[in-house]
Amino acid sequence: MDEHSYAVIMAGGGGTRLWPVSRKNQPKQLLPLLGKETLFQSTVNRLVELFPSQRILVVTVEDQMHQMQNQVPDIPVENYLIETSPRGTASAVGLAAAVLKKRDPDAVMAVLPSDHFIRNQDLFHYLLRAAFDIARRNYLVMLGITPLSASTAYGYIQQGEPLKGEFNYPVYRVKGFKEKPNEKTAHEFLRSGGYSWNSGMFVWQVGTILSEIEKQMPALSSALVEISSAWGTPKQNEVLRAHWRTLKSETIDYGIMERAENVAVLPASGLGWNDVGSWDTLFDVLFPDMTGNVAVNAQHLALETNNTLVYGTDNERLIVTIGLDDTVVVDAGDVLLICKSDQAQKVRDVVEHLKKHRQEKYL
Amino acid sequence: MDEHSYAVIMAGGGGTRLWPVSRKNQPKQLLPLLGKETLFQSTVNRLVELFPSQRILVVTVEDQMHQMQNQVPDIPVENYLIETSPRGTASAVGLAAAVLKKRDPDAVMAVLPSDHFIRNQDLFHYLLRAAFDIARRNYLVMLGITPLSASTAYGYIQQGEPLKGEFNYPVYRVKGFKEKPNEKTAHEFLRSGGYSWNSGMFVWQVGTILSEIEKQMPALSSALVEISSAWGTPKQNEVLRAHWRTLKSETIDYGIMERAENVAVLPASGLGWNDVGSWDTLFDVLFPDMTGNVAVNAQHLALETNNTLVYGTDNERLIVTIGLDDTVVVDAGDVLLICKSDQAQKVRDVVEHLKKHRQEKYL
Repeated sequence: MDEHSYAVIMAGGGGTRLWPVSRKNQPKQLLPLLGKETLFQSTVNRLVELFPSQRILVVTVEDQMHQMQNQVPDIPVENYLIETSPRGTASAVGLAAAVLKKRDPDAVMAVLPSDHFIRNQDLFHYLLRAAFDIARRNYLVMLGITPLSASTAYGYIQQGEPLKGEFNYPVYRVKGFKEKPNEKTAHEFLRSGGYSWNSGMFVWQVGTILSEIEKQMPALSSALVEISSAWGTPKQNEVLRAHWRTLKSETIDYGIMERAENVAVLPASGLGWNDVGSWDTLFDVLFPDMTGNVAVNAQHLALETNNTLVYGTDNERLIVTIGLDDTVVVDAGDVLLICKSDQAQKVRDVVEHLKKHRQEKYL
Repeated sequence: MDEHSYAVIMAGGGGTRLWPVSRKNQPKQLLPLLGKETLFQSTVNRLVELFPSQRILVVTVEDQMHQMQNQVPDIPVENYLIETSPRGTASAVGLAAAVLKKRDPDAVMAVLPSDHFIRNQDLFHYLLRAAFDIARRNYLVMLGITPLSASTAYGYIQQGEPLKGEFNYPVYRVKGFKEKPNEKTAHEFLRSGGYSWNSGMFVWQVGTILSEIEKQMPALSSALVEISSAWGTPKQNEVLRAHWRTLKSETIDYGIMERAENVAVLPASGLGWNDVGSWDTLFDVLFPDMTGNVAVNAQHLALETNNTLVYGTDNERLIVTIGLDDTVVVDAGDVLLICKSDQAQKVRDVVEHLKKHRQEKYL
């Protein structure tokens, strides 16, 4: 990767679907969910082969920054862009693009979530290089994931015509975006072969994305102009905070991508990608035994138990299961969660319920 | 009840089917499994209306005696008969009978487990009075439980002819004993109407049972003669220990009842009896909510969960279940058990497995 290539890790979120292990003050990217490294550490380690630490940026919130610096000391402190409050991915991406443009007007940036799993790192590197190539021809490039199932948990990207130009990989103009579909529609998408999952990974030139922001989100654009001009001066944080407060929270997908021109999708198959989006997805990432069971941080004694994940936080605790199938057991301090795998998405409803009833201590 | 009536509580056991709440050093009778009282306390409290504490005896082991004295201080210390090691119910009953005979040759004794639940105490008292009546006519009386289901967890007593004599209650000569049947046989027993569950509750004159022991278990009988003659002397414990060591472990059912003469069964229906024999039986004893769920000592947040028992040991712990049916969750310190209700009997296999693999700390 040339010296104008940058990686921007999006790490502001505090998702709720891996509760009760992930908590308000311990979002999933900061946790060693899948082994010894935290998801954030793995994300950085996947990138350092392509980007020196000086060209890896992190957009996050203040609470998380200190933990991140401990986990990955190599990234310079000035590469942490602190959102004073969460304002959605459009604002976060805009901030990174504006800051990068000031530093390097020719910058090309990859936007990468901090909390995903990717098994096949070589392919990931290959695809990123390809995406940077395409982005340099003024495209907004999305990394799509070729669907492995009719999942209803992801947004879908509809592929259009293959891009004109000489590319060594299949890459398509984006024809449309589809929100998380129902099961029937998901099956149609899967059968048609013309759709990818939206992975939340993007590559573009900072100039290209800032032009789109100017066209489609003028309020954000003018805020970014002000922030950019104060950046690096003593007024930097004050100006950021003042403008950030006024911004509407919006995702990059709805705010920009859906109406942007020159959007391309580079579909990836075989990447071993997983968004670690809910407890049931961990079966794909971890390595179950022959009965389909997986135990993490727990002594699991299984009797007539199949396809069951036992996720503990105390190796000395004995977890005995008798007659269970397709279940997730998460034993996390003051909370125990037992959930049928196919209902793992409902963990979010539980967290909402706890919030509503002010059970702060469990959040 | 007249002054020759005694209750003997059998409390030596350390069953494994309510593991992990019941442990080697905390057998289930010593635990407040069903409320504020321990099962042992409830057993005593059921009896005090009929028997003054001086006429309640307890056969147990030394380890448990101290906890029992704390739980029920009214029973005189000399009423605790200490088995130096467990030798089955035949030996325990024999010891109680021999000691009682020395104290009161006209004694009639009820043998009662320490760890059962009985909802209808008035009926229990009525039946006990009836059983004492019958026992005084030289019968060995068994309290049978009229089956409510084709259970395979109990031994069955086959009723024969109604007893001759003028009784105000239906009582039958025992025709035979059937071990825990398979499901098909259990259904036949239930349909026939002529069988009761063996509750482990007996009433007899001490003379009658000691004669049967003399006939059928001569080794036990001669040991009891020696123990009885040393009883109350300084050599009491030494003689007990010396003879006890030599005894074969045997149950009163196999050792005596199956070949005894003049065995009668008094079938009880409506007693609300439960042997608290495994986790799934607690649904019958506790009061489930409209979805069939019961929570004990736990904050249970149930989403699409039915017929599930959540049994905790920490009221502050939040136990969330999503999509569970017919499940038992037992959260007990260093062990968590999650078990399909219809496989609750297999908890015993787990305990055996842990013993075999020397996982003492979990037992």
